[in-house]
Amino acid sequence: MTFKLELSNNKIFKDIFESISNIIDEVVLECDSEGIRLKALDRSHITFVNMELTKDLFDEYVCSVPEKLNIDTSEFIKVLKKCKTSDILRLTVDEGNVILIFEGDATRKFNLRLIDMNYEPATPPKIDHPVNLKIPSNVLKDALTDMSIFSDKIKFIVNQDYLIIKADGTFGDGEIKYLHGEHVTDIYTSLFSFEKLKDMMKASGLSETCILSLGDDIPLELTFELITGDGALKFLLAPRLEETD
Amino acid sequence: MTFKLELSNNKIFKDIFESISNIIDEVVLECDSEGIRLKALDRSHITFVNMELTKDLFDEYVCSVPEKLNIDTSEFIKVLKKCKTSDILRLTVDEGNVILIFEGDATRKFNLRLIDMNYEPATPPKIDHPVNLKIPSNVLKDALTDMSIFSDKIKFIVNQDYLIIKADGTFGDGEIKYLHGEHVTDIYTSLFSFEKLKDMMKASGLSETCILSLGDDIPLELTFELITGDGALKFLLAPRLEETD
Amino acid sequence: MTFKLELSNNKIFKDIFESISNIIDEVVLECDSEGIRLKALDRSHITFVNMELTKDLFDEYVCSVPEKLNIDTSEFIKVLKKCKTSDILRLTVDEGNVILIFEGDATRKFNLRLIDMNYEPATPPKIDHPVNLKIPSNVLKDALTDMSIFSDKIKFIVNQDYLIIKADGTFGDGEIKYLHGEHVTDIYTSLFSFEKLKDMMKASGLSETCILSLGDDIPLELTFELITGDGALKFLLAPRLEETD
Repeated sequence: MTFKLELSNNKIFKDIFESISNIIDEVVLECDSEGIRLKALDRSHITFVNMELTKDLFDEYVCSVPEKLNIDTSEFIKVLKKCKTSDILRLTVDEGNVILIFEGDATRKFNLRLIDMNYEPATPPKIDHPVNLKIPSNVLKDALTDMSIFSDKIKFIVNQDYLIIKADGTFGDGEIKYLHGEHVTDIYTSLFSFEKLKDMMKASGLSETCILSLGDDIPLELTFELITGDGALKFLLAPRLEETD
Repeated sequence: MTFKLELSNNKIFKDIFESISNIIDEVVLECDSEGIRLKALDRSHITFVNMELTKDLFDEYVCSVPEKLNIDTSEFIKVLKKCKTSDILRLTVDEGNVILIFEGDATRKFNLRLIDMNYEPATPPKIDHPVNLKIPSNVLKDALTDMSIFSDKIKFIVNQDYLIIKADGTFGDGEIKYLHGEHVTDIYTSLFSFEKLKDMMKASGLSETCILSLGDDIPLELTFELITGDGALKFLLAPRLEETD
Repeated sequence: MTFKLELSNNKIFKDIFESISNIIDEVVLECDSEGIRLKALDRSHITFVNMELTKDLFDEYVCSVPEKLNIDTSEFIKVLKKCKTSDILRLTVDEGNVILIFEGDATRKFNLRLIDMNYEPATPPKIDHPVNLKIPSNVLKDALTDMSIFSDKIKFIVNQDYLIIKADGTFGDGEIKYLHGEHVTDIYTSLFSFEKLKDMMKASGLSETCILSLGDDIPLELTFELITGDGALKFLLAPRLEETD
């Protein structure tokens, strides 16, 4: 067998694919001796997902020959959801199948057909963000949900002291101010879709703190680094244009 | 600023408006140096709501000039629901806006437009109820939910010893008997809509015991006094007529 | 009064009828001095239910004259669901009514009309199963739910060492292997409807371990013996035929 991994902390895997499956239907897992990578752009070309899991994340990791696994994410997450916290997760590949094995009271084995896919490796645009902020994942998540009362468009403003998350609606408007503690000399504004942000925030369980990279009307980057240091999940989200009344 | 209040025990506020927002769409909060009052009749003229919160309920309360705040209750409760138990709630007024600020990990600020309203102050009918009973809020709540299996009309009977809550349906009927411990010499009967009672009972978290005032085919009064003694929420509910077969 | 029972462990009653009410609309409870029995076949003639509760299960049990109680299970479970864990459940019969009384903070009484029913006592087919396996109820329940990802038809295979629960679908297939620890010399295969199995598994709270009796394309029998030893709930489920492609 050329490819085999084992993971007891399966929650990481579930959180990652829970989030990805809401954004992208079909992905390619690129596996080699270093670990697993995934780079994909959603159908609407708004969200770019960049996942990297190093081999050290896994209790066991064997990949003697590089593999490309084409996966239907909605089927993959259906299976992953059946994995209990106490189960040991094993993943291997057979001709045409990804095989997931959950070892607990019983041995539960799931074979998922690999799908056909014209693989066009997506390359994320190289962006230099003027501002990179650390913010507790739950503070960001709550701020976005709070503002969604007013609108499905969320504005991010960074000034010298604060990250301000705002929304404007018919019945009212709101803002969350978070003292960012970084050295920022200018003011930056950009606008995003709440629905897209919400899908990304499904990964918020991955780390207590996330890194939010922002600028002026440029894509936002959101990074969840695994607590174990063995990988990261990054999102790049295209901005929305402010509508003129 | 002429109006400003601060409250750490924000659950009271949420419970009160959770219940009111199900009954009445638009209300006037009348604020003066003594506290906040609300008197309103629902659209169908069946339920009258009477709220009184004295200034002592609040950690801080400033109201130098009386204010009338016209509020859309469904928007108001949407915002209040975002307030966490650990947050400090602040409420002020700006031209045309009620401003709610939740102070926690971040400062979250919500501006809600005050609405236009032809304010007709509703005055509740003065009713002398022959019977006033204390009953644990959860016992009353459960009794009503139980009886709703059988019918959407709930009958209240008070006799010398018991409060009896009844319902009759096609598949069966039921009754809850609660030993009321009051001095009652007569028998009183009245019938009410379960849906209306259910909306009122959303406030049952306000106090462990409520006061139920009843008579013969007259409106029921239900009073939740705040545990802190700093206010009350009262409902007056018009009776239904017994249908004749 | 000829019939009267009292039960403090009312969860058993709720679990049993929760499961039965999903399978059969109308049942006859046959009560005599020994206890309560129920034998019924569902409308589609696929699931046979066999319940037996001995009088020792109850804190009090009086049945001087045998009774047959014709019950609408969906109304019966609606009432039972209102019984709290801390309530004492009493059941008696009046002309034309089953009377359920829940004794707690208040006395809650529910009368349910007995229904008209042309009672045809169902007799379950006598089947000698070649294999009888003990399996933790939650392991079986999880296995079935897991496999329902792939198909609504679940295959049971028993070989010398394992009980294998399988399903095949368009996107993949899966299997759960459970080391059964019994003396089995042959291989047995049969196929069942997941929906029917799911309804039966609603009773899984009745005992930590259930008994699964299987053979080759014959009905499956699933037995939940009450932990107290005072009764059992058995299901007999007709197999499905394997579709040929």
